[in-house]
Amino acid sequence: MATPPTTETKTDEVRPRADGRHSLPESGGLLLEQVAQDIEQQIALGRLLPGDRLPSERALAAQLGMSRNTVTAAYLVLEKHGAIRRIAHRRAFVCPAGVAENPIDWSSKISRQAHLLDEPVLEMLAQSRLPNLRYRLSAGTPALSCFPLAAFRKATDKVLANDAMLAFAIAPTEGQPRLRRAIATLDNAEASHILIVAGAQEGIDLLARCLIEPGDRVIIDRPTFPGAIQALQAAGARLVEWDTAEWSADVLERLLIAYQPKFIFTMPTYHNPTGRTMDEEQRAKLLGLAARYRVPIIEDDVYSRTRLQGSAPLSLYRMDKHKVVIYLSTFSKVLAPGLRLGWIAAPPHMVKQLSLIKMRANLFTEGLQQLALAELLENGVFDEHLAHLRATHTVLQKIALNALRQQFAGDELEFSIPQGGLYIWCRWRRPVDMEAVLLRAQQKGASVAPGRAFFAGPPDENCFRICFTASTEQDLPEAIRLLAEALRNPE
Amino acid sequence: MATPPTTETKTDEVRPRADGRHSLPESGGLLLEQVAQDIEQQIALGRLLPGDRLPSERALAAQLGMSRNTVTAAYLVLEKHGAIRRIAHRRAFVCPAGVAENPIDWSSKISRQAHLLDEPVLEMLAQSRLPNLRYRLSAGTPALSCFPLAAFRKATDKVLANDAMLAFAIAPTEGQPRLRRAIATLDNAEASHILIVAGAQEGIDLLARCLIEPGDRVIIDRPTFPGAIQALQAAGARLVEWDTAEWSADVLERLLIAYQPKFIFTMPTYHNPTGRTMDEEQRAKLLGLAARYRVPIIEDDVYSRTRLQGSAPLSLYRMDKHKVVIYLSTFSKVLAPGLRLGWIAAPPHMVKQLSLIKMRANLFTEGLQQLALAELLENGVFDEHLAHLRATHTVLQKIALNALRQQFAGDELEFSIPQGGLYIWCRWRRPVDMEAVLLRAQQKGASVAPGRAFFAGPPDENCFRICFTASTEQDLPEAIRLLAEALRNPE
Repeated sequence: MATPPTTETKTDEVRPRADGRHSLPESGGLLLEQVAQDIEQQIALGRLLPGDRLPSERALAAQLGMSRNTVTAAYLVLEKHGAIRRIAHRRAFVCPAGVAENPIDWSSKISRQAHLLDEPVLEMLAQSRLPNLRYRLSAGTPALSCFPLAAFRKATDKVLANDAMLAFAIAPTEGQPRLRRAIATLDNAEASHILIVAGAQEGIDLLARCLIEPGDRVIIDRPTFPGAIQALQAAGARLVEWDTAEWSADVLERLLIAYQPKFIFTMPTYHNPTGRTMDEEQRAKLLGLAARYRVPIIEDDVYSRTRLQGSAPLSLYRMDKHKVVIYLSTFSKVLAPGLRLGWIAAPPHMVKQLSLIKMRANLFTEGLQQLALAELLENGVFDEHLAHLRATHTVLQKIALNALRQQFAGDELEFSIPQGGLYIWCRWRRPVDMEAVLLRAQQKGASVAPGRAFFAGPPDENCFRICFTASTEQDLPEAIRLLAEALRNPE
Repeated sequence: MATPPTTETKTDEVRPRADGRHSLPESGGLLLEQVAQDIEQQIALGRLLPGDRLPSERALAAQLGMSRNTVTAAYLVLEKHGAIRRIAHRRAFVCPAGVAENPIDWSSKISRQAHLLDEPVLEMLAQSRLPNLRYRLSAGTPALSCFPLAAFRKATDKVLANDAMLAFAIAPTEGQPRLRRAIATLDNAEASHILIVAGAQEGIDLLARCLIEPGDRVIIDRPTFPGAIQALQAAGARLVEWDTAEWSADVLERLLIAYQPKFIFTMPTYHNPTGRTMDEEQRAKLLGLAARYRVPIIEDDVYSRTRLQGSAPLSLYRMDKHKVVIYLSTFSKVLAPGLRLGWIAAPPHMVKQLSLIKMRANLFTEGLQQLALAELLENGVFDEHLAHLRATHTVLQKIALNALRQQFAGDELEFSIPQGGLYIWCRWRRPVDMEAVLLRAQQKGASVAPGRAFFAGPPDENCFRICFTASTEQDLPEAIRLLAEALRNPE
C-alpha cells in the first residue's frame, strides 16, 4: 500500500460532501467520521491508490489510540460511500474511483491490434457495399442474374429432404466430405488436401493466423485486395510490396534476400484490382525463386474461372513441382458472395493445422449450402453456369469499356482491359482529390472502390476500381456517366 | 558479405563433386573452374553465407589477375550449380543451401501461437464429434429429431423464391437486418445492438480479438467450455479461474484486485459442463463488482433457452444497469449446430468494432439460413419448437439419469442433475486413468467429452461430460452401459 492513514486530526465539523452525501451520524460520533474523512482525503490526494490495502482495524485502532469499534464503524461508513471495500471481514482495500454509475468506456478496453484497423478505408468500403445505392460499381460481385436459382432451390430442397441431419449436425471442421470431394475433382486434387472455408477472406485470415509471427515480413502484390492487407496486418505482418506492373523476378529475388519473408501472397490471374495476369515465364520464375529460397507462396486464385474468353493460364498450384504453393479460391466470384464458401488446397498436415485454428474461430462451416453446392458441382450445373456467366460478363465488360471511352473521350483516364475478373482499374491522369470525387459520385448514387484501399504502402494517386459485373446493361452506362460527372466537376 | 573469395590457387585437377556433377568444360578451361571451386569451397566452409554478395566480376578479375570473361564464366558455372544467383547482370549472391528439391517443411513455418494449440485435447474432442461412432455422448447437440424440418424447408424455399438476391449478394457484416430485428425482439433489445455471428464460438473469437492484448488476464469459470479456453488463449490471454462450485463474490473481488483482468467470461445459466446456475444474489454481486471495478462481463448465455422446466433466471445482460455486460448466444443448442448462427448483444459502437474484426475474418455470415431462421422466429415456429425440445430433453435426461443410477448403483460416480443445458457432469470417485478409460469407451463405440478439456488450469481428475440430448431414448442406456463397462474394467 502507498501510505498508512496519518494521525493528523482535523477539528472541522462534518461537512456535506461535494456530491451532497453526508457522513452518517452513527455511533462513535465525530471521531469515527474524522477517521473516515482522513482516509477519504488521502484517497482524494492520491496517497492511497485503488487496490491499496488498508491497515487492519486492530492495527489502525492501536495506531490512532482509539477503540477498534470506532475504526470498524469508520470503515463501514467508507464502504457505504463506495470508497473502500471490506473483503471477507479480514482485509479492506481502496476502491477504484468514479464508482459504477457511468457505463464502461468500451473503447478503452479495445486492444491496440483491433484499434489498428484502418477505419476510414474499411468504412468507405463498407458503405460502398451497402445496398442503398442505385449504382454499385464498388463491390466485387459476379452477375447474380446468372445464378442458377432453380437448380439451387432444387438442390437445397433435395438436401433437406435426404440429408438434413448431415447439414444440421456438428460437422468436421475441414468441411463436408462431399463438397471436399467435389472441389477436389474440380481442381484435379485430392479431397484430403481441401479445406472448406467461409469465403476466401476466411482462408486468408486462417493462413495469417497460422503462419505469421508478429513482425514477420510478407511479400504481397502492389496493389492488392484490401481484405488481404487487413487480415495480414492484423496478424502482425509487415508487408513488402511487389509491383504487379512487372512482377519482376529480379525484384522479387532482391526482396527475398533483403527481407527473408514468411511467405509471398500473390494473385497471378486476373488480379484484383488491376486485372493483370502473370505469364507462364513469370510463373516459372516465381516458383523457382520460392523453391530456391524456401519461401512458400499463397496463391489467391479467386478469379481464374471468371476468364472472359479462352483458357486461364495454369495456376501456380498446378505448376508447382516443389510443393511450395498453398492455393486459395472461392465461389463468391463465380456464383454468389452470399454463399460464403471457398476453399484452401494445401498439404494434408497444413489442412489439419488450419482446421485447428478454424475450430477455435468458428468450429466449422454451415452445412446446408455446402451440400447444395456439392450437388451443383456433381450434376454439371456449375459448369453450364460458368459458360453463361462468362458470356454475360463479356457483354457487360464491352458496355463498360464503351461507356468509359465515350465519357472520357480525351485520354485523361487510363483504364485496364482485362481478360477476366470483375474489374476495370482506372487512373485519372490529372491531380485530383480522388476521395472527394468518389464521395461526390456516391452522393450522386454511384459508388466505386477507392484506389487507396488497395495499397499496403504509399498509394498510387488518383486510382479507383470499377466492378463491371454487378450492374445491369442498362445501369452501367449511367453509373459511369455519373462518375465522369463527379470527376469533371469539382465542387 | 562475409569474406571475399581468396586468391589461394589449388592445383588439383577438376574432380567429380560429391553429387556426381562435374564442373563443365567451358571456355577458360581449368582457370575458371578453379575460381568456381574456390567459391564453392568457401560456401561449404561457411565463409560465404546465403545472401552474401559476391564481388563484382570486374573487381574479382582484377583481384585474381585474370580476364573478366573468365570470372563471368566461373559465375555462370556456379549459377548452373545452384550455388550462386546473378541478379540483373550486376550483382551476384550466395544461394541458400539445399536447393529446392525437397518440399518445404511447412511445420517450420507455423507461428508459435498456432503451435500453442493443445492438440491432444482438440484432437480428442474432434474425434469424439465425428459421426463414425455408434453412441455419441460427447458433442453438445440438442435433440435434432425435434428440428422443425418441414417449417425450415418451407422457410428456405420462401427465401429463395422471394429474397434470393438478399441471400446471395454481399451483405452487411453485422448480419441480415431482418434477423437482427427478429433476435432483438426475442431478446427485448434493439437491432442496432445485435451482431450476427457464425455460432457462439465465432462470437468468443471476435471478442477475444477485439479486447485482448497479449498478456491480459481474463477471469473465466472453472471449469468452462474448451472452445472459450482455446480462443481466449489464442488471443494471448492469461486465464484466471473462478470456481463455479461457489461463484463466490469474495473470491472474485480478490481476483479482480490481484489480477486487474480485461474482462470476466462466465456462463451463469445451465453452465457447460457442470449444469450449474448462478442464483439471483450471485448475479447481483457479480454485476456490482464488475461495475465497481469497471471490468466488463462477457455473458455466455447459450443454454438459457434449454431449461427443462420453469423459467431460467434473468440474464446478467437483462439485469445489468451499468452497461458492463456483453451478451453472447446461439441457435446451435436450441435448433441445430450446423446452422452456424449465433449473436452478440452489445453497445452499438462495440457492434461496429466487432464488425470491423469480423470483416477481416470472413466479411459477413451467409445469408440464406439467416433469412430462413428470421422467418421461423417471426412466424412462431421457433417458440413452438422450444416447447417441444424441452419436453424431449426432459425425457432424455430422465432416461440418462436412470441409466447412470442403474449402472453405478454404488456411489463411485458423482453426477449433476441440472435443470437445463444438454449435459451431465460426472466424476469418478476412485483414482483412474480417465483418458485411458474414455479411449476404451470410444473403442467400444461410445464417446464422452474428457473432463480435462474443460480446465484452463490444473484439471480436476476423473471427470467427464455426458451430453444426454444427442442420442435416442433407445441408445442412451446402452451408451451409458458401455461407458460403465469401460470404467469398471481396466484392461
